[in-house]
Amino acid sequence: MITSKDNRRIKDLRKLHKKKYRGRLNRFLIEGEHLVEEAVIYNQTVHTVILSEDYVSDGLDVKNRDLMFVSRDVMKSLSLLETPPGIMAEVSYSPPESSGQRVLLLDCVQDPGNLGTLIRTADAFGFDKVVLSPDTVDVFSEKVLRSAQGSTFHIDIVVEEAAGAVRGFEGTVLGTALHGALPLGDIDVPAGPLMLVLGNEGSGVSSEVLSTVDLKVKIEMSGQSESLNVGIAGGILMHHFRA
Amino acid sequence: MITSKDNRRIKDLRKLHKKKYRGRLNRFLIEGEHLVEEAVIYNQTVHTVILSEDYVSDGLDVKNRDLMFVSRDVMKSLSLLETPPGIMAEVSYSPPESSGQRVLLLDCVQDPGNLGTLIRTADAFGFDKVVLSPDTVDVFSEKVLRSAQGSTFHIDIVVEEAAGAVRGFEGTVLGTALHGALPLGDIDVPAGPLMLVLGNEGSGVSSEVLSTVDLKVKIEMSGQSESLNVGIAGGILMHHFRA
Repeated sequence: MITSKDNRRIKDLRKLHKKKYRGRLNRFLIEGEHLVEEAVIYNQTVHTVILSEDYVSDGLDVKNRDLMFVSRDVMKSLSLLETPPGIMAEVSYSPPESSGQRVLLLDCVQDPGNLGTLIRTADAFGFDKVVLSPDTVDVFSEKVLRSAQGSTFHIDIVVEEAAGAVRGFEGTVLGTALHGALPLGDIDVPAGPLMLVLGNEGSGVSSEVLSTVDLKVKIEMSGQSESLNVGIAGGILMHHFRA
Repeated sequence: MITSKDNRRIKDLRKLHKKKYRGRLNRFLIEGEHLVEEAVIYNQTVHTVILSEDYVSDGLDVKNRDLMFVSRDVMKSLSLLETPPGIMAEVSYSPPESSGQRVLLLDCVQDPGNLGTLIRTADAFGFDKVVLSPDTVDVFSEKVLRSAQGSTFHIDIVVEEAAGAVRGFEGTVLGTALHGALPLGDIDVPAGPLMLVLGNEGSGVSSEVLSTVDLKVKIEMSGQSESLNVGIAGGILMHHFRA
């Protein structure tokens, strides 16, 4: 059992709290039994399963995995949660294949909770591919992974320049806009592949990207609020256009 | 200008970070120009506007208000944000009157971001009254107020025991449920007043409350995710049943 926070392997794992190292090493950390279970079931590359000395298995199968046992203190140094979990894992992302029938494109979404919730919602409505513009918040950060609740491993997530992804998409592309947009209720669900574009929390979809979409859509509002949270807008739209 | 964090008035204001004192004093703090502006416009009882020494007004009218000027350090001690705003205010809630045509009832929602987003979304779709069960997270905490983006002041928010609120409602009551529920697409929008009941992030609407609703509803899903975030579910349902 590793009992020192200064152990070299532990120090290396802690580097994965930083986006720079996650990108360089192509690995990230996941926390808690649910995420580890999802990673195992959905064929992610699980390099190491990290178990705290006080971990009691809930039936999770970690046979044939590289196990690392650590003290409670070491687990605390690895975890970003207030209450450290009994189990973590070091993982490389192995995206499943997508049908390409329903694609969600996120153009510079910045809030980790919004990104995670959008991934979870995409998964719920059959949007099995998510394209993230390079300036979107990192999908492998702890908060995003936690909000996504395992859906990260169910869908094909790629980072790609937004305008290029729109131009290269063979199907109907819808983008949210406040001006010159059709109300959602006036738009029929297209027969073929569909890409939905959502934008930044403050500024929406960039004008460059909006100029390339086939249809601009807005959600009808009837109250005094000026706008919807991007996760909520995405939920209403993905429900409407679900696979 | 107040320059000491130990100033008695400042210490009293800091007490409002705790739910206990907010309840006892019937006051809370709001942060940033947007929320202060919304509080002023929507006739909240603004006891004191707190201005940092480096605050530059963006045209906000705080004439005839009790102003308090503080140093940057004192502002930092009052703010719960990483980057303290230039302006805060001490406020008592003065709810507007509601039509009662569209009511959202939240039964033990625990995440501050979810509650704030649900209030913002209710406001967007004409749900002008929100009932919170007593075990719901405090609506006047900083995170909830921030996520609600001012919508707190646009709608009538009350704390009331959930089952009693359902029984006392004169109109159709819909509650979300996984079992024995109709798909959303099969439910017509009722003609009269409507109450929508959403539940806790983990356990949903309590069985006691569910046994009192008129109709159980579920949102159709087509992917691999097991459930929706309560804010997303609320968004889809309130959009469907909007005023």
